[in-house]
Amino acid sequence: MATLGDLGVGAAINILSAFLFFVVFAILRLQPFNDRVYFPKWYFKGLRESPTHSGAFVRKFVNLDFRSYIRFLNWMPAALKMPEPELIDHAGLDSAVYLRIYLIGLKIFVPIAFLAWAVLVPVNWTNSTLDLAKLANVTSSDIDKLSISNVPAKSPRFWSHIVMAYIFTFWTCYVLLKEYETVAKMRLHFLATEQRRPDQFTVLVRNVPPDADESTSELVEHFFLVNHPDHYLTHQVVYNANKLAKLVQKRKKMQNWLVYYRNKVSRSKNSTRPLMKTGFLGLWGTKVDAIEYYETEIEKLSNDIAEEKERVANDSKSIMPAAFVSFKTRWGAAVCAQTQQSRDPTIWLTDWAPEPRDVYWPNLAIPYVSLSVKRLIMGVAFFFLTFFFMIPIAIVQSFASLEGIEKAAPFLKPIVEMKFIKSVIAGFLPGIALKLFLIFLPTILMIMAKFEGFTSKSSLERRAASRYYLFSFVNVFLGSIIAGTAFEQLDTFIHQSATEIPKTIGVAIPMKATFFITYIMVDGWAGIAAEILMLKPLIIFHLKNFFLVKTDKDREEAMDPGSIGFNTGEPRIQLYFLLGLVYATVTPALLPFIIIFFGLAYVVFRHQIINVYNQEYESAAAFWPDVHGRVVSALIISQLLLFGLLSTKEAAQSTPFLIALPVLTIWFYRYCKGRFEPAFVTYPLQVISLAPIAS
Amino acid sequence: MATLGDLGVGAAINILSAFLFFVVFAILRLQPFNDRVYFPKWYFKGLRESPTHSGAFVRKFVNLDFRSYIRFLNWMPAALKMPEPELIDHAGLDSAVYLRIYLIGLKIFVPIAFLAWAVLVPVNWTNSTLDLAKLANVTSSDIDKLSISNVPAKSPRFWSHIVMAYIFTFWTCYVLLKEYETVAKMRLHFLATEQRRPDQFTVLVRNVPPDADESTSELVEHFFLVNHPDHYLTHQVVYNANKLAKLVQKRKKMQNWLVYYRNKVSRSKNSTRPLMKTGFLGLWGTKVDAIEYYETEIEKLSNDIAEEKERVANDSKSIMPAAFVSFKTRWGAAVCAQTQQSRDPTIWLTDWAPEPRDVYWPNLAIPYVSLSVKRLIMGVAFFFLTFFFMIPIAIVQSFASLEGIEKAAPFLKPIVEMKFIKSVIAGFLPGIALKLFLIFLPTILMIMAKFEGFTSKSSLERRAASRYYLFSFVNVFLGSIIAGTAFEQLDTFIHQSATEIPKTIGVAIPMKATFFITYIMVDGWAGIAAEILMLKPLIIFHLKNFFLVKTDKDREEAMDPGSIGFNTGEPRIQLYFLLGLVYATVTPALLPFIIIFFGLAYVVFRHQIINVYNQEYESAAAFWPDVHGRVVSALIISQLLLFGLLSTKEAAQSTPFLIALPVLTIWFYRYCKGRFEPAFVTYPLQVISLAPIAS
Repeated sequence: MATLGDLGVGAAINILSAFLFFVVFAILRLQPFNDRVYFPKWYFKGLRESPTHSGAFVRKFVNLDFRSYIRFLNWMPAALKMPEPELIDHAGLDSAVYLRIYLIGLKIFVPIAFLAWAVLVPVNWTNSTLDLAKLANVTSSDIDKLSISNVPAKSPRFWSHIVMAYIFTFWTCYVLLKEYETVAKMRLHFLATEQRRPDQFTVLVRNVPPDADESTSELVEHFFLVNHPDHYLTHQVVYNANKLAKLVQKRKKMQNWLVYYRNKVSRSKNSTRPLMKTGFLGLWGTKVDAIEYYETEIEKLSNDIAEEKERVANDSKSIMPAAFVSFKTRWGAAVCAQTQQSRDPTIWLTDWAPEPRDVYWPNLAIPYVSLSVKRLIMGVAFFFLTFFFMIPIAIVQSFASLEGIEKAAPFLKPIVEMKFIKSVIAGFLPGIALKLFLIFLPTILMIMAKFEGFTSKSSLERRAASRYYLFSFVNVFLGSIIAGTAFEQLDTFIHQSATEIPKTIGVAIPMKATFFITYIMVDGWAGIAAEILMLKPLIIFHLKNFFLVKTDKDREEAMDPGSIGFNTGEPRIQLYFLLGLVYATVTPALLPFIIIFFGLAYVVFRHQIINVYNQEYESAAAFWPDVHGRVVSALIISQLLLFGLLSTKEAAQSTPFLIALPVLTIWFYRYCKGRFEPAFVTYPLQVISLAPIAS
Repeated sequence: MATLGDLGVGAAINILSAFLFFVVFAILRLQPFNDRVYFPKWYFKGLRESPTHSGAFVRKFVNLDFRSYIRFLNWMPAALKMPEPELIDHAGLDSAVYLRIYLIGLKIFVPIAFLAWAVLVPVNWTNSTLDLAKLANVTSSDIDKLSISNVPAKSPRFWSHIVMAYIFTFWTCYVLLKEYETVAKMRLHFLATEQRRPDQFTVLVRNVPPDADESTSELVEHFFLVNHPDHYLTHQVVYNANKLAKLVQKRKKMQNWLVYYRNKVSRSKNSTRPLMKTGFLGLWGTKVDAIEYYETEIEKLSNDIAEEKERVANDSKSIMPAAFVSFKTRWGAAVCAQTQQSRDPTIWLTDWAPEPRDVYWPNLAIPYVSLSVKRLIMGVAFFFLTFFFMIPIAIVQSFASLEGIEKAAPFLKPIVEMKFIKSVIAGFLPGIALKLFLIFLPTILMIMAKFEGFTSKSSLERRAASRYYLFSFVNVFLGSIIAGTAFEQLDTFIHQSATEIPKTIGVAIPMKATFFITYIMVDGWAGIAAEILMLKPLIIFHLKNFFLVKTDKDREEAMDPGSIGFNTGEPRIQLYFLLGLVYATVTPALLPFIIIFFGLAYVVFRHQIINVYNQEYESAAAFWPDVHGRVVSALIISQLLLFGLLSTKEAAQSTPFLIALPVLTIWFYRYCKGRFEPAFVTYPLQVISLAPIAS
């Protein structure tokens, strides 16, 4: 176990590296040639132009203004300055609400930390259990002296922990309730004041049943003319236009080349027409005039596209059994989206149309039965992924070992036997197999969600996020507390009684406090500071810029930093909520580290959202019920673990008082669900009536 | 353990008593003076008159036609003859669908029984584990030779049980699926073809928010004029008219007396006016002319009622924050019932108005928060009721013991010490305390459901039914298998691992087969046969008829047999599903007993529904999802118990194949829920559009 000294060294290293990241960031971001990496959002909005300093050529790439380096942390207040309404305007409601998750962390943990340090730390400190244990040669760290481990068994002092558990629960629930209320209001306000968009009048209809006499389009029209006679306006069936999309993509590429050559011509002083070879990668083939070649190619493609368009529109096979149905009023659309259309609840499924950007097209036409089967398969697959993911990795690792390689490819033997390579293989390869898996995990989860048939990108990300959280709860949280693979844990738990499980975990909790503190410093402090450096996008941008970028359009694509990544970011925050709530009563010394994480992450991500990330879609904070639910579940887990821990402390008198906590918390969850969740699922008619109605 | 001989005696006794009940029933029902007890339904429908045989006075009471006694079982084919559509017409969809539950029992268990006897019985029989055990002085019955206990540990024969478990599961799911489909169709057809009733155009609005400026009525009107301008027709606020109801009740009683005295005058030959005393029970006071007295009293009351009506209509305190809002079209009502009205999802809650008969008025005005608190309280209370109900009973029993009585009331000592009374107290009182509790349990559960704030009688009964099922699962099923009170079981289970629990129960299952066979014969055979005798209503009717009935209206009230009692009847059937599914693979010898129960109960209840029970409301089979869910849960329980049982048999090779079963079954449940449940919750717009629309 780490002593306070070890922990101090760890903290110093991480603080230093975080500081270093900030300094490097401060330097890099001021260089004009990095401008597009650190401020892409403004470029996308058309509010920023490439910096064109008149003067020396070097100043186009390097910032020589030394005054700007002095205030190297001035991005922080700048990031905090933008008021929330403006932020919503600038980056969308999703991003603004996403930032609120960090704020909740602060709101929950700052008062809890003060209270815990004021009450629990003195209560724990003024015991001497661990001193006595030390005499008996049991090692323990100084951190542990502040924790519940220092309270002797059967002590009446456990009452203070129980009372605190109640206070912490009530405070957390209160913050969550207020926040849910606020976010729900923000969402309704956002929806009501949005500028009119066609998707507000549109409903996505899926599972249109096949009909022998009518085409899908006619069927949809007749159905809605009969069932929504006063409100139906028009509809648009969904086509399967994969080939068309490919052609359009190809033409886009060609056009880009055309622009490139035209630029070349207009820039070069002697207006020689550029030549090119038509063969593979322009390496061989006949030489032709490049501009002329691309012009004729584009014309050809345009004709093909027009033809394909016609074909798709008339070919019944490429019409999918889904349609976007538009209504004359938002009221009509709201009614259609919220009611059941047909006797058979598996056909004519209606839902609010996602934003056009948000639609995940490939999933629009999955029939109900196969949807249901797919959910089952993915549920089972996810179970195995969570508990058995170590098995394939162990297999890969056995292949990636020295013997494995030598067996599979004997001709590599002389190379592998070299000392340096040998040590690399022995030391790194097994770790890399695991690391690669963890890097690809979000992608795997996204693919699983896509397979399950969600129709919007936002719901795909929400599903992937909840699975990622479950995975990290089992494999990071439980995996760190209890030794052994997830499958071994599962095996233990199955063979333990329901009261034994929280005990087993609960007992191990205080012992892992220093480990988690280190984890928070590495992942939560240095990791967040590294985030702002944007090392990967920085390198990729410069590589692309150097090798691939031919036109302005290419440069714009090269600087696209993507969206904030709800599917990985949110579960990561949730892990900190879990740690904070679990350790609040057990080892309050951990709380300040959590608070620093939340504070730092809030500033960094606010900066990133303002300057960097470009949102792919706008779901109007539809993810909030998930966020809320996961914090509540962390709360319940913390209560159960405290219960387990205390019951091993033989505090038989006081422990039973904890039973009411999870019951009350579950009730709180259900209350909130009934009270607020509808605002995130349906659109109340009142809001819609108040909004301007198209006639 | 019982031998086959014991079981044969038990069967003979129960078959005889069932037969006796049928004979007595056949005799009693043919007596004209019982006609109103055994055919009240036809009286209510106005299709049957009191039998008025011309001739001897005695024939008015006793049927002397001996020919009618010969075919004493002819009510059975008569009960089966009425085709289902006519039955729906006659007794409502609820009753018709209720009967289908028994039919499902037959559909599920007849093929399963054949298969089990063809495959499992020979497989079990041709082992000799129990013969060997008998040599070692372990007692076992002959029934056990047919059961899985007779297969030795580690035997590959367990494969046959596992394959059978799969086949049984698939067959049960298939029957359930088909049945859900049929019932859903029946419901939609019923709703679409129903005669127009005002409640089809009406929505119940609850939690109307208070408003300082407007009365509730105005508020409702304005809200719906704004939000449903094209469809809103009118509304009716709900009044708290308890006092009014009392006055009306009183007037009704008076009118009944008036009719009685008038009849008396018209019947008596010398037209003396009847006199009465105005004091307590007519025993003292001044003598007055009875008819005149009641006429003036009724007039007075009528005035009071008119006054009270006025007061209620104008007093804002007696207006409840709920209203029935009617729409011009069923479409408009469907839309309003299925959509969210307000930003705040806890106010302006809309729902289809229950049938007027179905409304449970006292619960219309409960605010959202207190509703949520009430649910929590009742959840906790039900938990304690289920697991700790033995505690208060034990206390009562200790008071009801000899020492208890002597201590509480020493003056009773001489009486109590008498030998006869002593033995009564010692032998009966403790049992009576338990029996009384069990008799009042359905009432207690109904009161709990009422407290929870359901707004219709049908939903009250559904909630009470699901609780009753849980209670009997814990206390009858588990309680019979494992000795000890429910709380002791709970304590054991909490301290056992998740895999241990099904083992503990699973091992005990085969040993309890003979007990449950006896249970089925007593409760399921003789009990059902006793049901048709209607002993309680028969006695009550004759007592009332003799002492209380004064007018025709009184007689009609006296013969009211009530409704079929979904809240107790359905959980009772479900217990048989559970027993049948659990024992299908373990002790197939139990299945024929179950089949006889389902067959007998089907005939008996079909007769009762046609001739006796008078339905209180019509929910159009809204209870079906509950029925389906409980059969599925019984299926899952049976799979888990088989899993537990086999894992103690050391059939390590074959047992893991059972894991997929519960997963598949849960998936089946979810599939059915998505596929059919909406038909029982919402009304699809298509059905409504096809139905005649009011203009």
